[in-house]
Amino acid sequence: MTEPTGARAHDLTLEEKAALTSGADFWTTKSIDRLGIPSLMLTDGPHGLRKQGGDTDHLGLAGSIPATCFPPAVGLSATFDPALAERVGVALGVESAIEDVAVILGPGINIKRSPLCGRNFEYMSEDPIVSGAMGAGLVRGIQSQGVGSSLKHFAANNQETDRLRVSSDVDPRTLREIYLRGFQRVVEDAQPWTIMCSYNRINGVYASEDPWLLTTVLRDEWGFEGIVVSDWGAVNSRVAGVIAGMDLEMPGSSGRTDAEIVAAVQDGSLEEAAVDTVVDRLLDLTRKAQSRPAASGPLDVDGHHALAREVAGRSIVLLRNEGGILPLQPSAALAVIGEFARTPRFQGAGSSQINPTRIDTALDEIRALSDGEVTFAAGFAIGEDADADSAALRAEAVAAASAADVAVVFLGVPAHEESEGFDREHIDLPADQLALLDAVLGVTSNVVVVLSNGGVVALPFADRVPAIVEAWLLGQAGGGGTADVLFGVVNPSGRLAETIPLRLEDTPAFGSFPGEHGHSYYGEGLLVGYRWYDARQLPVAFPFGHGLSYTTFSYGDATASVDSSGDVLVTVPVTNTGEVAGREVVQAYTSLPGSSVQRPPRELKAFASVALEPGETGEVELRLRRAELAYWDVRVDRWIVEAGEYVIDLGSSSRDLRAHTAVAVAGDEVVLPVSLGSSFDELLVDPVVGAEFAGIIAEKFGSEGDEMLKMLGNFPVGRLDGFPLPRAELIALVERAQRG
Amino acid sequence: MTEPTGARAHDLTLEEKAALTSGADFWTTKSIDRLGIPSLMLTDGPHGLRKQGGDTDHLGLAGSIPATCFPPAVGLSATFDPALAERVGVALGVESAIEDVAVILGPGINIKRSPLCGRNFEYMSEDPIVSGAMGAGLVRGIQSQGVGSSLKHFAANNQETDRLRVSSDVDPRTLREIYLRGFQRVVEDAQPWTIMCSYNRINGVYASEDPWLLTTVLRDEWGFEGIVVSDWGAVNSRVAGVIAGMDLEMPGSSGRTDAEIVAAVQDGSLEEAAVDTVVDRLLDLTRKAQSRPAASGPLDVDGHHALAREVAGRSIVLLRNEGGILPLQPSAALAVIGEFARTPRFQGAGSSQINPTRIDTALDEIRALSDGEVTFAAGFAIGEDADADSAALRAEAVAAASAADVAVVFLGVPAHEESEGFDREHIDLPADQLALLDAVLGVTSNVVVVLSNGGVVALPFADRVPAIVEAWLLGQAGGGGTADVLFGVVNPSGRLAETIPLRLEDTPAFGSFPGEHGHSYYGEGLLVGYRWYDARQLPVAFPFGHGLSYTTFSYGDATASVDSSGDVLVTVPVTNTGEVAGREVVQAYTSLPGSSVQRPPRELKAFASVALEPGETGEVELRLRRAELAYWDVRVDRWIVEAGEYVIDLGSSSRDLRAHTAVAVAGDEVVLPVSLGSSFDELLVDPVVGAEFAGIIAEKFGSEGDEMLKMLGNFPVGRLDGFPLPRAELIALVERAQRG
Repeated sequence: MTEPTGARAHDLTLEEKAALTSGADFWTTKSIDRLGIPSLMLTDGPHGLRKQGGDTDHLGLAGSIPATCFPPAVGLSATFDPALAERVGVALGVESAIEDVAVILGPGINIKRSPLCGRNFEYMSEDPIVSGAMGAGLVRGIQSQGVGSSLKHFAANNQETDRLRVSSDVDPRTLREIYLRGFQRVVEDAQPWTIMCSYNRINGVYASEDPWLLTTVLRDEWGFEGIVVSDWGAVNSRVAGVIAGMDLEMPGSSGRTDAEIVAAVQDGSLEEAAVDTVVDRLLDLTRKAQSRPAASGPLDVDGHHALAREVAGRSIVLLRNEGGILPLQPSAALAVIGEFARTPRFQGAGSSQINPTRIDTALDEIRALSDGEVTFAAGFAIGEDADADSAALRAEAVAAASAADVAVVFLGVPAHEESEGFDREHIDLPADQLALLDAVLGVTSNVVVVLSNGGVVALPFADRVPAIVEAWLLGQAGGGGTADVLFGVVNPSGRLAETIPLRLEDTPAFGSFPGEHGHSYYGEGLLVGYRWYDARQLPVAFPFGHGLSYTTFSYGDATASVDSSGDVLVTVPVTNTGEVAGREVVQAYTSLPGSSVQRPPRELKAFASVALEPGETGEVELRLRRAELAYWDVRVDRWIVEAGEYVIDLGSSSRDLRAHTAVAVAGDEVVLPVSLGSSFDELLVDPVVGAEFAGIIAEKFGSEGDEMLKMLGNFPVGRLDGFPLPRAELIALVERAQRG
Repeated sequence: MTEPTGARAHDLTLEEKAALTSGADFWTTKSIDRLGIPSLMLTDGPHGLRKQGGDTDHLGLAGSIPATCFPPAVGLSATFDPALAERVGVALGVESAIEDVAVILGPGINIKRSPLCGRNFEYMSEDPIVSGAMGAGLVRGIQSQGVGSSLKHFAANNQETDRLRVSSDVDPRTLREIYLRGFQRVVEDAQPWTIMCSYNRINGVYASEDPWLLTTVLRDEWGFEGIVVSDWGAVNSRVAGVIAGMDLEMPGSSGRTDAEIVAAVQDGSLEEAAVDTVVDRLLDLTRKAQSRPAASGPLDVDGHHALAREVAGRSIVLLRNEGGILPLQPSAALAVIGEFARTPRFQGAGSSQINPTRIDTALDEIRALSDGEVTFAAGFAIGEDADADSAALRAEAVAAASAADVAVVFLGVPAHEESEGFDREHIDLPADQLALLDAVLGVTSNVVVVLSNGGVVALPFADRVPAIVEAWLLGQAGGGGTADVLFGVVNPSGRLAETIPLRLEDTPAFGSFPGEHGHSYYGEGLLVGYRWYDARQLPVAFPFGHGLSYTTFSYGDATASVDSSGDVLVTVPVTNTGEVAGREVVQAYTSLPGSSVQRPPRELKAFASVALEPGETGEVELRLRRAELAYWDVRVDRWIVEAGEYVIDLGSSSRDLRAHTAVAVAGDEVVLPVSLGSSFDELLVDPVVGAEFAGIIAEKFGSEGDEMLKMLGNFPVGRLDGFPLPRAELIALVERAQRG
């Protein structure tokens, strides 16, 4: 470990300062040897290190050194276990440190606004609390190893279509409560070294040059202490970015934008102090990176693979299990059907693509755990030639299914249908796979469907198949994790971090996603994910938070109280009422009956994952932060906790609510000064002059006063001249109200 | 008739000019005797004259002289017959002229965005073509009598909640295609003398002071030649209004705002030329009003009542008629049930409330047409004491129903639940009315439900009642019109100008209507009304355009062609295949498969109402204006007709499509200059350099080019430095594309 540089901005020439604000090449920052400022490497990897060896291609899409491919976010988030995410983070940090990588580019926590987003496999949830809590876990783990994380993509980057130009047009309350809230939580809880600004615009302003986003909100409100790095190619105007607080442009521009910064300082359009602020932040990052303890290689390939398998097993969501068909008996004769069992889809395409240290297949791992006969039939081809000889493949699979006790059918989304860079156009499984399943169901009803998919898919067969295992994209050990769950080596405990809808037409952003002509209107507002389905009382295939176990749990009576910090503490006893050990994810949803603002029917505020032996009762405690009870009030531009009796529903899913309690919460005051623009209705409730004004109305209109107010109560006081008093008297009344 | 004033703005002093721009009192403008400029009277009345006699109260809600109350817009629009609207307009004009009213304040054509809008009874439709065509008919009729109309409320005033302050936040394409399109059609087709600007803000700007709305769009684009009058109390800043093109403030401000105008001219913040422009427009209006031929009173009360009855009959929509229970046999023993049969709701509350010349009740008119026994039972009480003695009322009704051949049950929305000034909170009929219906259904299945309502209601009983008659609010002769339809004196031909949903939760704006804290986000975008239900494939109670007849119609083969003006002419033979004369409303919906922009599955572009004798075939011709095939392109800020093969579905409703044709339409060119901000995908299709660039990609990436483009094709050309060419070469390429 070399001594961290002591350099500060004032030690650098203007040209050196400008040079520091952009990369040397695709993956590294520039060094300044005379000041002991080293080059830092930043590489991809929300779920594994993607360090390109030797020559990096300019796109950054070519091969990289082997690294452990952990379950992508779509899987990890389904564990609902931030502590497990933290363990994955530690492993990522270790692998980064061994490779001398200063910053690993992840986690990605953008909200899954639509199941069509091509990059949903890299994101956590449709819910900001899940996204934030899981993201914070990863960041804590990574950074515990002296390696920086890069929380991305900040912000409102919820689609791939036209992603470098599209404006995410979001109303301010929705932006705060849904799209920024998870980022806020990660920043406040885990202080990532870096945040990656996104490609898109937000309400017309590029994220890479938005001073409100990158300075007012991120640093001034949330207290972010790290640097902002551009997504690769996200810089539109470099000088505007410096002013906004965008510290590091990646990749470099061969000096072009550095020269723009120098020129702007020289012509006075950019204050050098703004450049100094950026440079000092970059030097702070450099010192943090330089302070990393020496890494002790080589990589523990087996240990990390085992962790990847553990996490994969924990990520799996058992959607359905009728008649106890799962877990499989070791002695059962199995027909394993579907190319995905042999050729796993274990990660998504694009910048997060890892070169894994090894790859498990479900077929091999099933064979390893089975004592019975296991036959395999591909059933369908994957890749571009999917329709090759589907009839023959199907016939082979049907024959295998006929001869087996149970058919385990692996279905999934072909790799070419989901990737960074473009969005999906539908959520359907390929027709040949559905036809295969129908054919198998024609010869046996003992069918287990295992799904491989980054984005959720429609499950039109859900009622006809006794068991459905949602196995996502699960990283290099996904095959093992899947086998573990199928045979009950692991009792499934994963939960849906996103709703599985019945139809694309039911989804919140249908018709507005992905927008067109440079704009994507977030028309569903707050009603994202389960908030939408609950508000509109829509049936879904499987609700947010859902996931079965091989055991059962019962909930006792819940209690809630407000602690000295203002947070709400909820406790509920949960008992494992089944025969095997298992893990329950207890979810706390709140609502506020009679709220003065629009609210979804219920919103997740906290969750806890608890492991229980058969018969064991655990007292589960959940902390609902006061700050997260708040709504964003656009009248005063701040978070407001509304006073009232909050209802707390404790559920095993968003639609399986098992216990209920309520707690009185004191509110924040919202003071809106009375003026001539206040309505009659507002003047009537003013503490100073309200009663007097009510008397005037009563005197003037008598018994018709109520009807008059129903019709005209929303008129501003000063709008109808002389009504109901001479204007001078109205002004005097308002002025008295203002004096208080 | 006095000689019209020859005054122009330059004849007036500054103080006189300012005085002209606001009212003298609640209903009249100021006169300037020395120049022969008279005071003009403007009064309410989209469906009847509301001229207050003697002292006008300041609110304008007190009694008025008797006038014919025609069916409110909710009824009139259901006729789908602009010629009939024109006849109503003529009658309104005649009544206005007799009373020396210069301008009658209507029609109101705001889009029914949500069934909750309290003022929906005053508006036409959820569709802009219906709204525009019907509105234009009314305007033509009114103005044929030398009386001005006032098209209102301009614009995007689709709710009552906080209506004086709320901002309707609408994306530009939706604003143009849904919320402004009807206004545009009325202006272009019928040139109303005045337009009334609305109370609300649009995207943050008050309609009363929005130069884009009142000048750029209204006058420059659409060619409006009349004056803009404020809704009563809509003026926020009078000086800003003058600059924006808001000509006349109503009511007057006792000179306060006139003085503001004078002061602004004197201090240079307002150009006197802007005031002159307004004043010259006001003087033009004055001359038009002065040119009205002398009116020949007295009012033909009987003739206008007969017209009101004819229109009422035409407005009724027969929603359901199983087993031919309707028309009623004259000899049938009838139980007429429901207070509305005796105490009709025939108009809505608020500024449009007419003092009718007489009032028909359905009960009296049924008795007049019946040869059998007709008993009556109130069934429920209406008004605030609705729960009075409901059990007794219900028992009486059940007894009456038991004894009759057919029970005709009048249900509806109580008057206090819908009005100008506030919005509804639900769409349910009162529980006591639903209980009454259930009780009646318990003793007889021969039930006809007749609905009285301004906004649509949920019909949870729709499958259990053989006949449902939607009788809206139908004006003073609604009772007669209802009896006419029940007995088949009039064969019903009304159609739903708005969808009747199954549930409030299914409606497009659910969750975003009416907004809060000063903003209403139009999140459903283009998908208003049937556009939403069709796009999301949602079931509805009764679809847009639906309405049954006592006869049946068959459609022959449709043909379509483009005429020399570019309009599409569609013809389809329609045959009356039943036993009685009837009227069919043929609806032409278009779609464009493979469109490059988002489009609802189908959109109404034209309709025609055709009367046919039994066995008669009529060749129905519909003109689909080329301009109305266009979408609003936000990239170039203008209407664009996309080239392509337009599918035309001809339907008896939006979900009962009877004939189909298609026509090739030439497109408008959209030229988007290539720049470094263009994407790689866009550069590849550039006519000048596209092929060359494709060659460069092929050479550089070989077989991986396609994959690279799938992922990076949406990157702006200049964003990744040096990729795929040195920046200077990329710039040269772009410059060559720009030179063309």
